Amino acid sequence: MFRVEKKDENSRARSGSVETSHGNLKTPAFLPVATKGVVKTLDIRDLEELGANGLIVNGFHLWIRGLEAVEDAGGLHSFMKWDGPILSDSGGFQIIRKDFNFKISDEGFLLKSPIDGQMVLYSPEVCMQVHSVLGTDVAFVLDDCPPHPSTHERLEVSVKRTKDWAQRCLEAKGDDQQVYGIVQGGSDPDLRKRSSEELSGMAFDGFGIGGLSIGESREEMYSAVDVSLSNLPSDRPRHLMGVGSLAEILESISHGIDIFDSAFPTRNARHGTFYTPNGKFDIRKREFNGKKEPLGEACDCFTCRNYTASYLHHLYKEKEMLAYRLLSIHNLRTVISLVDDSRKAIADNRFGEFKEMYLTGSSA
Amino acid sequence: MFRVEKKDENSRARSGSVETSHGNLKTPAFLPVATKGVVKTLDIRDLEELGANGLIVNGFHLWIRGLEAVEDAGGLHSFMKWDGPILSDSGGFQIIRKDFNFKISDEGFLLKSPIDGQMVLYSPEVCMQVHSVLGTDVAFVLDDCPPHPSTHERLEVSVKRTKDWAQRCLEAKGDDQQVYGIVQGGSDPDLRKRSSEELSGMAFDGFGIGGLSIGESREEMYSAVDVSLSNLPSDRPRHLMGVGSLAEILESISHGIDIFDSAFPTRNARHGTFYTPNGKFDIRKREFNGKKEPLGEACDCFTCRNYTASYLHHLYKEKEMLAYRLLSIHNLRTVISLVDDSRKAIADNRFGEFKEMYLTGSSA
Repeated sequence: MFRVEKKDENSRARSGSVETSHGNLKTPAFLPVATKGVVKTLDIRDLEELGANGLIVNGFHLWIRGLEAVEDAGGLHSFMKWDGPILSDSGGFQIIRKDFNFKISDEGFLLKSPIDGQMVLYSPEVCMQVHSVLGTDVAFVLDDCPPHPSTHERLEVSVKRTKDWAQRCLEAKGDDQQVYGIVQGGSDPDLRKRSSEELSGMAFDGFGIGGLSIGESREEMYSAVDVSLSNLPSDRPRHLMGVGSLAEILESISHGIDIFDSAFPTRNARHGTFYTPNGKFDIRKREFNGKKEPLGEACDCFTCRNYTASYLHHLYKEKEMLAYRLLSIHNLRTVISLVDDSRKAIADNRFGEFKEMYLTGSSA
Repeated sequence: MFRVEKKDENSRARSGSVETSHGNLKTPAFLPVATKGVVKTLDIRDLEELGANGLIVNGFHLWIRGLEAVEDAGGLHSFMKWDGPILSDSGGFQIIRKDFNFKISDEGFLLKSPIDGQMVLYSPEVCMQVHSVLGTDVAFVLDDCPPHPSTHERLEVSVKRTKDWAQRCLEAKGDDQQVYGIVQGGSDPDLRKRSSEELSGMAFDGFGIGGLSIGESREEMYSAVDVSLSNLPSDRPRHLMGVGSLAEILESISHGIDIFDSAFPTRNARHGTFYTPNGKFDIRKREFNGKKEPLGEACDCFTCRNYTASYLHHLYKEKEMLAYRLLSIHNLRTVISLVDDSRKAIADNRFGEFKEMYLTGSSA
């Protein structure tokens, strides 16, 4: 299912391709986040035009409101009209968000349904059933993702439970769906190692590195990434979940990560922040009033091909929803250009040089 | 500037074309409302694809926040990247909305600037200066538009003031801009007649029928339209301002109206209401959960070509902004199809038949 095509000679960066029945996901890849079956504010043509190669959705969020419509449509690809690869996250990460006031036990998550107020169980088995109804190409196991910081005891419980749940997920998995395990262990090198080794022994098609970018330092994050990757099989794709900024993505590629997803580019856009290779900017600032250039000097996105920074400043100040969409298109295009350019640089054996140039030109 | 191309033999309906330096506006025409230089939620490609032939913006709303950026851009066409005809309304209608707490006098509107709290005057002369900076193709005069109901005395003041302001607007007008007068007079036939006659004697390129669809009955509205039109020169375009529903547009075409604008299709969309030739529907209703057909059976809009009613129901229930845009595209396409089909029906001498068929098939 995964083919490494090229390895960088001066780092652990690599390029490759994940085969799915909805086309190949070329890695390094960045997946826009379509939590509830839509990348906020964007339609499918927007996503195609900005070069999205695959998407990631959230199984828990889609399940909690009822899956009947998706089931009727014959699955999520048909429901949301996206023909490319879709990965579905399990929703284990939601425990950190606290929106649903989960009670966690070895059984799974117990929560009150927002539909009818009844207590419902979201277990590894339910999770896999959800993935199966969604009909996504890649399903993530349900994991126990504790907040940062957590005690050593709590992290140990998480690693053990994540392993047990991973096993239950594999047993409950449907046909025709790749399943990725998720490594936990917080910032504790021993627990990261243990978690990676335990999952490596199971029949997963790929691996997520979970529980990072939640408040730990950058050093802790990269060290946890390194421990995880060095204990995972190198012939399968590695997905760093929920990361992140342009600089973090570039750095993580050099550590050997293949796949990224993050809601930041679109969430930032809705809050008025846009990205360029030179850093982050706030569209509300007066300096953009009257600025006739597009957001990104060399950007080829729909927004930059059509509109000036001045017009976007005006739209945002007037709280016009079009601003949120146009900035989302631009930010996603900027991130996707970065992974696309990284892939080319790896192919041409000049990734180190590319990374250096990008980071020195950038305060990202 | 205006050419009547075809007159219906069984009604006062007519088709024609308004020449502008940004192309011809084919009539009957419906103009999407871009109050602040954007049709809410839509980009320029959306508008082109749904067949918008021209737009209408609001001079007052653009002025009150500062026109520097538009001026820097060399005008509104360049600022908002719309190459077709743009009409700019004066903002006289805002007195009904009460958002700005206008004090009206013969001088103009006095109001507190939302920018710096200073009292500012929006006079006929300021209004024409705004139109000139915007560089729109057609500028509406500043009018005094009293609410419904108003006393006879108030309506008389409005008619007199609207005439005086119309004269001042003509004296203050810039070059290369067509100017349309606005008929007032409420639902009073004598005052409507007086207002129409007074404006007819002035050098206007077209006429707006203002102060309607603000609470009066349909009979009162059509009677006011008839009095106005029978006293206006027939060789110039007549714009029924702020109207309206599919049925009102169709009926008004048969009374001799050439141009329409209304924020209803997009405002309704954001509130979950979509149009079809069979009436209005609420996308939130359970009946759309799982409905695999598009919104409109025979609709050719981007939304209907790509998405099911079921998916739109899901997006709307989840408060996803994409729903507002997709429903706006659909509603505007439905209204614009109606005026396009009316134009063809007039050309083929079958407008009466077309209107009958449309209205009996419809609860619009």
